[in-house]
Amino acid sequence: MEPYQLTATQALDKFKGGSLTVEEYARSLLSRIETRDAAVKAWAYLDPEYVIQQARQLDSIPPEKRGPLHGVAVAVKDIMYTKDMPTQHNSPIYEGDEPKVDAACIITLRHAGALILGKTTTTEFASTTHGPKTRNPHDPTRTPGGSSSGSAAAVGDFQTPIGLGTQTGGSTIRPGSYNGIYAFKPTWNAISREGLKVYSLILDTIGFFARSVEDLQLLSDVFALEDDVHPQDDFSIKGSKFALLKTTVWPQAGPGTVAALETGAKLLREHGAEVEEIELPPEFDKLPEWHSIVLHSDGRSTFLPEYRIAKDKLSPFLANHVENVNKISRATQLEAFDGIAALRPNFDTIAGKYAAILTPSVVDEAPVGIESTGSPAFNAIWTALHTPVSNIPGFKGETGLPIGLSLVAPRYHDRHLLVVSKAVGEIFEGEGGWKREIYS
Amino acid sequence: MEPYQLTATQALDKFKGGSLTVEEYARSLLSRIETRDAAVKAWAYLDPEYVIQQARQLDSIPPEKRGPLHGVAVAVKDIMYTKDMPTQHNSPIYEGDEPKVDAACIITLRHAGALILGKTTTTEFASTTHGPKTRNPHDPTRTPGGSSSGSAAAVGDFQTPIGLGTQTGGSTIRPGSYNGIYAFKPTWNAISREGLKVYSLILDTIGFFARSVEDLQLLSDVFALEDDVHPQDDFSIKGSKFALLKTTVWPQAGPGTVAALETGAKLLREHGAEVEEIELPPEFDKLPEWHSIVLHSDGRSTFLPEYRIAKDKLSPFLANHVENVNKISRATQLEAFDGIAALRPNFDTIAGKYAAILTPSVVDEAPVGIESTGSPAFNAIWTALHTPVSNIPGFKGETGLPIGLSLVAPRYHDRHLLVVSKAVGEIFEGEGGWKREIYS
Repeated sequence: MEPYQLTATQALDKFKGGSLTVEEYARSLLSRIETRDAAVKAWAYLDPEYVIQQARQLDSIPPEKRGPLHGVAVAVKDIMYTKDMPTQHNSPIYEGDEPKVDAACIITLRHAGALILGKTTTTEFASTTHGPKTRNPHDPTRTPGGSSSGSAAAVGDFQTPIGLGTQTGGSTIRPGSYNGIYAFKPTWNAISREGLKVYSLILDTIGFFARSVEDLQLLSDVFALEDDVHPQDDFSIKGSKFALLKTTVWPQAGPGTVAALETGAKLLREHGAEVEEIELPPEFDKLPEWHSIVLHSDGRSTFLPEYRIAKDKLSPFLANHVENVNKISRATQLEAFDGIAALRPNFDTIAGKYAAILTPSVVDEAPVGIESTGSPAFNAIWTALHTPVSNIPGFKGETGLPIGLSLVAPRYHDRHLLVVSKAVGEIFEGEGGWKREIYS
Repeated sequence: MEPYQLTATQALDKFKGGSLTVEEYARSLLSRIETRDAAVKAWAYLDPEYVIQQARQLDSIPPEKRGPLHGVAVAVKDIMYTKDMPTQHNSPIYEGDEPKVDAACIITLRHAGALILGKTTTTEFASTTHGPKTRNPHDPTRTPGGSSSGSAAAVGDFQTPIGLGTQTGGSTIRPGSYNGIYAFKPTWNAISREGLKVYSLILDTIGFFARSVEDLQLLSDVFALEDDVHPQDDFSIKGSKFALLKTTVWPQAGPGTVAALETGAKLLREHGAEVEEIELPPEFDKLPEWHSIVLHSDGRSTFLPEYRIAKDKLSPFLANHVENVNKISRATQLEAFDGIAALRPNFDTIAGKYAAILTPSVVDEAPVGIESTGSPAFNAIWTALHTPVSNIPGFKGETGLPIGLSLVAPRYHDRHLLVVSKAVGEIFEGEGGWKREIYS
């Protein structure tokens, strides 16, 4: 096995055992990137020489002083400030911009010994569905999803074991599904979002991509994600109870997602779980509209600076937020903001009755074309409700591309959700029908 | 009158009339600062030569291309990123740090033609009540308040007409009162907080200091603060209805605040307003405790990076947040977060019945000593409720130091509140008993 194929947890083991240096590991990843970059185009910025230099520096740290992520390569979405690399937000306004500051999450990762590989592509300000140059590694005629396009594609294509993304609508879970990888959006604000471009304060959430749940757990340790009760690692599907939730946007589901949800529920039942189909009470029906209202009205203040200095370089979609072309009144904005807030504890109570809620991650396989990054229809309500969500890969659509399913838990049950995700992931990846390939 | 004595609105008139250049204005302010800096110590960073250079650049802009804040001097709290000056957060961890990026509010101000004077002192990360070096201009043995210490003191001492602050507890309104100036905390998130150090996402709010309400209105135009209905400028105290609210923390009020609230209500009545004393329903009683719970539990994730890289340079108060020494459970955190959220629309309904709610800004005059920046007891609930609040100066305490009163309105009634504040300010400043002095 080439080093680039390792998960973060596997690479760490090899560093600890002395059978792999960070430099060797970095060279393997850079070689993989060199091979695949023309097809995938996941990177907004990458300086191979600088990566090697950082890797050597990590190798020079004595073993007893190494951090919990020593040498683990991380791809960073290009809306997160990195003091040693440009941060350009896929916006011509910020072309070549280099804020000399690290986002909070980058400080934490560097301190833990992570090797920051480079910056990955995003839609403009992580705020539109107009794709960047990046292509789906499983089919270059298709989108990798967005807005965390590059981080998800890079993880899916074995160019990095770990990618950082964000989610305001469906920007972590959707690309997770399209790229056949694990994605995790923790509880809102459980990880500091300082130093990230803002779209909506109450929605924007940091997310992670990886090819194993162990890697997500490793990151959760580093970011001190803590439930009230740390879950036992021996969660058993057998005897547990899941909810199956189609949501009000279910009519949008394509054949791939319909089949995946059916198969997913069947597999859980076959492994001894009870799966109860539920519907959310009717007051939850407004969530998609409320999410959209909050997003657009928050964009009104968020993008004012860019609108003022360079309206012609801002996409009309975002300029329209500032101009409030949809004439969203403050009263309507507050009704949506307060309405969502009132639903959060109600949802936690419902979700708390189950090991997790099984629900679609996407409408279907990644759509053809890279202009649109696809629909966040199945993700937005969880972003609004602040709940942790994971994407579990394992299924495939009509053309053989990966499809995942989401697991959802109450707020601040992040560690619980990961334990459940690990058990579910073993089943879905083992028996769901889709197998991860390494393309050359 | 020396240029440094001008409000922003007055200075703008002179620039437009051609009777004052920005350079002359800047030199007058710098001279004022030179005279007074040893006594007040409001600045964390100020480079007079650079200020003059910026002023000259502004003077060179042709009149038709000048912005709405052309030449207006602004003091910036040192937790806001400025690409051409250090941002140090009053933390040894960030000593000399110079992120090459502007906070969103700084981009907007620069585009409007503002002259960024320098960075003003703050408590550590705007997150403690341990004062910086700054002294109250009205009495150097006393605190100017905090955490926006320097901005408020500089405005109160005629070293700048406009200061930027933030409020997470009482960090704008309290120093506004202590320094005898107008202070304004707009509705939460009505102005983008991008590029500001975070303490609590759901509480942190940008605030302004000025010596006139017109100046606050000028800033509100620049930041596109918009109510659903733009208020008429001819608001009349006569025939209007105010609420008088002592709040549950009233037992903490000292003699200065007790007298100010009594006089304030009397003056409004004398000018023809109805003033109705109200109490908030009992469910609001938990707000102070809930505010504290949200603050401390948000600090748990916010300060993780600094805790990791330099725990010994972080104040124990903030390190304790990260360690969760108060053992605030996630369930308790969410109860507070959701509980506050549920009260917001209820409060808006109550406040909507009045021109504004009149309520204390502070416990009393600025306390003696600069170690503690005083108590935010009377401010925290408005921060939690996201409402706009203004401090109206005009009263004095037992030793003759300024005391202000707060006006509060429903969320997104910012422009309404400023119109009311202007009318109320004329009365309180005219008849409240305290007169602004210029110290030499």
